[in-house]
Amino acid sequence: MTETNQQLRLAAFPKGVPQDNDFEVTIEAVPNLGDGDVLVRNHYASIDPSTRTSWVDTGSFHQAVKLGMLVNAGTGGEVIASNNPAFSVGDMVMGGPGLQDYSVTDGKTLQKIDIDLAPLTSWMGGLGITGLTAYFGLLDIGDPKPGETVVVTGAAGAVGMIVGQIARIKGARAVGIAGSDEKCKFLTDELGFDGAVNYKDDLYRGLKETTPDRIDIVFDNIGGPMLDTIMRRLAMRSRVIISGATSQYNEPEIYGPKNYLSLASFRARMEGFIIFDYADQYQKAREEMAGWAKEGKLIFKETLVDGTVGDFPAVMRQLYAGENIGKMLLRLPGAPR
Amino acid sequence: MTETNQQLRLAAFPKGVPQDNDFEVTIEAVPNLGDGDVLVRNHYASIDPSTRTSWVDTGSFHQAVKLGMLVNAGTGGEVIASNNPAFSVGDMVMGGPGLQDYSVTDGKTLQKIDIDLAPLTSWMGGLGITGLTAYFGLLDIGDPKPGETVVVTGAAGAVGMIVGQIARIKGARAVGIAGSDEKCKFLTDELGFDGAVNYKDDLYRGLKETTPDRIDIVFDNIGGPMLDTIMRRLAMRSRVIISGATSQYNEPEIYGPKNYLSLASFRARMEGFIIFDYADQYQKAREEMAGWAKEGKLIFKETLVDGTVGDFPAVMRQLYAGENIGKMLLRLPGAPR
Repeated sequence: MTETNQQLRLAAFPKGVPQDNDFEVTIEAVPNLGDGDVLVRNHYASIDPSTRTSWVDTGSFHQAVKLGMLVNAGTGGEVIASNNPAFSVGDMVMGGPGLQDYSVTDGKTLQKIDIDLAPLTSWMGGLGITGLTAYFGLLDIGDPKPGETVVVTGAAGAVGMIVGQIARIKGARAVGIAGSDEKCKFLTDELGFDGAVNYKDDLYRGLKETTPDRIDIVFDNIGGPMLDTIMRRLAMRSRVIISGATSQYNEPEIYGPKNYLSLASFRARMEGFIIFDYADQYQKAREEMAGWAKEGKLIFKETLVDGTVGDFPAVMRQLYAGENIGKMLLRLPGAPR
Repeated sequence: MTETNQQLRLAAFPKGVPQDNDFEVTIEAVPNLGDGDVLVRNHYASIDPSTRTSWVDTGSFHQAVKLGMLVNAGTGGEVIASNNPAFSVGDMVMGGPGLQDYSVTDGKTLQKIDIDLAPLTSWMGGLGITGLTAYFGLLDIGDPKPGETVVVTGAAGAVGMIVGQIARIKGARAVGIAGSDEKCKFLTDELGFDGAVNYKDDLYRGLKETTPDRIDIVFDNIGGPMLDTIMRRLAMRSRVIISGATSQYNEPEIYGPKNYLSLASFRARMEGFIIFDYADQYQKAREEMAGWAKEGKLIFKETLVDGTVGDFPAVMRQLYAGENIGKMLLRLPGAPR
């Protein structure tokens, strides 16, 4: 083949917010297919705040992402050639070795997706790992009961917007915390959240107003001092679900929740989870979420940014700056417009 | 009556470690008994690190301990006069309005204790709130399984020494963290702990050596950076029980656990509890613990310091300096020697 393949590789372990020169664009020929190989043209790259956590020099041989390796962003695209009976040209797939225009693999890391159920962008968001994180974190760790109050941080983000909507499907009240009035309006007016608070205003006051019966479940994607403020509003026997700490991934030292002793005062618990533990239940969860989407109870939303693989660091900085609503995806040149 | 009653009152909200001039000794005549009243001569005052947490000016009308009020230490002693049919002269009791030589009450806050089961000092320690804290925190929140590893901080203290012993009774391994080699030796040689680490040495290294299968349950009485170090050794699905944070009670700002994100990596939870929620089960727990004590499986230990009510702040400072082994009690002049 004569097509060239643009790839993004890690060139340095970022200090703070990832900069362009922490990465290097390499250009290779698209390799020929061997027996059993599949060629995918990637359409989208997933922009996830937690990807940043693997770009730390642990000094370990087992380090997941080493310098020179492809950047570990999730990708999704279309099979354009296949020597593998499990894949046909035109299949839409997710997965692969990292961020590049084309991938050639043996297909083992590829997941075929059903675009009759939902488009690829939804599969990379609401039906992807971010949506599954919302689903299993909220339902398995939080276990919301009708009438309980769920507060979610990063509420207009890929995970948060699903958390609040599923909370409401389960009969709980959903209050979202987000970083702009526009996002708050989106949460209440378009997604049906019961309340939303712009954390750039007076967060504690906003929480008091929107959670009159205090907070039964916190679904935290952000961490930092925001979590401390929220923990002042815990209800008895509340659950604090630790999903992520986006505010901390670029910091040299993690901010620990100073109000953790309120776990005792409120007989509360703080609990973490790893989404991969639920892998055998993904399919069932996706079918349930797709069903809710068809009924109009669950809305998926993506922010698409057009660019090449080299634009990935800039789009990631937009994510950290809170410029997305819903799942943020880099739309690569190969994607249909 | 012509006896005088020495009392200790809060004179100022302490900044940092409580100082003598944060308190005031007052001397009153012992009041005459009204109908239904009970006169108790106190023998012991309980020295508990958490008492400090109520000496903070919250500005609230409902503040538990206001300036001028009796210091809220637990007391235990003997009934020496009674107009209340529920109490007889010679009864041993715990409870009362605060720290003083004599108390006159209507008996409602007094608990009669059975000295055939254990002496008063054990009732104020192992069978008292500290022992119950160990019992319910470990068994209800931690739920140790045979072969699991339990690490307890403040292990040579009133709560910690009971935690480790009950862990062993339940078939778990007990590793204690304490502040001197002498305390560590006491834990392993006298109480049968499987391991002990002096945190003034290399704590992480000591934990690695004593918890080869990592840590299933943390029972934390201390907080601060020590908890962070321990959380680096969590096992999958581990439980971090938040009982207290003695290292933080004198600090202007609580140190939050920076490693709280490892709750996610290890599918772990951090959970608090309030001992008073278990009040209807105290009696059963005390009988079980007293039974273990009679069988020699559970050892109670107290550090008694002789003094008057005015010595309370100094003894409390000794506690914060780690000079006690087991429950620390101020032995008042009225106590039998």
